Amino acid sequence: MRRWKCLSSTDVVKDRWLRLSADRCELPSGLILDPYYVLHDAEWVHVMAMDAVGDILVVRQYRYAGNAVCTELPGGIVDAGEDVLIAAQRELAEETGYTAAKWDYVGWLFANPARQTNKVHLLLAQELSPSSSQALDASEDIEFEFLPMDYIQQAIETGHFSQALHVASFYRALNFLAMRRDASLTLRSIY
Amino acid sequence: MRRWKCLSSTDVVKDRWLRLSADRCELPSGLILDPYYVLHDAEWVHVMAMDAVGDILVVRQYRYAGNAVCTELPGGIVDAGEDVLIAAQRELAEETGYTAAKWDYVGWLFANPARQTNKVHLLLAQELSPSSSQALDASEDIEFEFLPMDYIQQAIETGHFSQALHVASFYRALNFLAMRRDASLTLRSIY
Repeated sequence: MRRWKCLSSTDVVKDRWLRLSADRCELPSGLILDPYYVLHDAEWVHVMAMDAVGDILVVRQYRYAGNAVCTELPGGIVDAGEDVLIAAQRELAEETGYTAAKWDYVGWLFANPARQTNKVHLLLAQELSPSSSQALDASEDIEFEFLPMDYIQQAIETGHFSQALHVASFYRALNFLAMRRDASLTLRSIY
Repeated sequence: MRRWKCLSSTDVVKDRWLRLSADRCELPSGLILDPYYVLHDAEWVHVMAMDAVGDILVVRQYRYAGNAVCTELPGGIVDAGEDVLIAAQRELAEETGYTAAKWDYVGWLFANPARQTNKVHLLLAQELSPSSSQALDASEDIEFEFLPMDYIQQAIETGHFSQALHVASFYRALNFLAMRRDASLTLRSIY
């Protein structure tokens, strides 16, 4: 499947909040699409932070475009030049005050590759400690709490954990944990 | 948790492809954010189409912003005034030529409520028939095939089924199917 060619790209908005370009694209068929809009977003990071009994640290904040209070995983934007792990540790600490002694990189997904350039990176954080208080921006108002996994699964069904990117990360982390359990069972059965 | 107030909203882009507004927002703390960008997207729909042996109908297409060929669920944009079920049936037929005799509405998720107004609606389609050939736009080049569920789960791990919104829908549909199985087991144990 052949790729599209970018013939030109003009920034429509470019400030500290958003970079939106209008591109002129040539498709393999020769068809020209103009404008084709692209959001040049920074990478994003989500943190699935799990305590010793398997409960998950969630945050709750008002989301303006959806006009809803959403329960989500901690996370945010990876700063320019910042390592994904460092960004995950920073966002977890800023939003909840927690640090973690054990980190796993679960993987990445495209946020929306039709229109956005960026990926969402997912990290699993374990061995948690409440190390400091939140360090929020003036525009942020974030509550946090630990919830059992089956409560989150119910909240997905009932629309209280309703942000698709975070639902993808939650299920993906569950899958990662299940595979690791399978792997450790396999190891146990060998030795 | 109190909501933000929209003091004014100015369209930066408004054409048939995109509506982006720059809003002036007042937060409960009194802080003013200006501009706060909002994408006023139409509703989106995803279809989890499952055949008689439990394989899933996936589509594959080039996604320009991510510069990648992505495997996804069939789906697209709900037209203005269109019923979500009708949109799902239309997108499935256009992208794959399949129709389904049995439809379930699984639920909705916000695409990204921090910046986008819209939701992604998920429908489960069963009792499939290949009814027609694809009916693609000139700009679309879409392949389709049936894949076993465990293959898709592996493809999520390896980055071949890599679009977060579709990963959310896939896992959510699995959950819906599992709950229905549990419900039917419960019913069986009662009668």
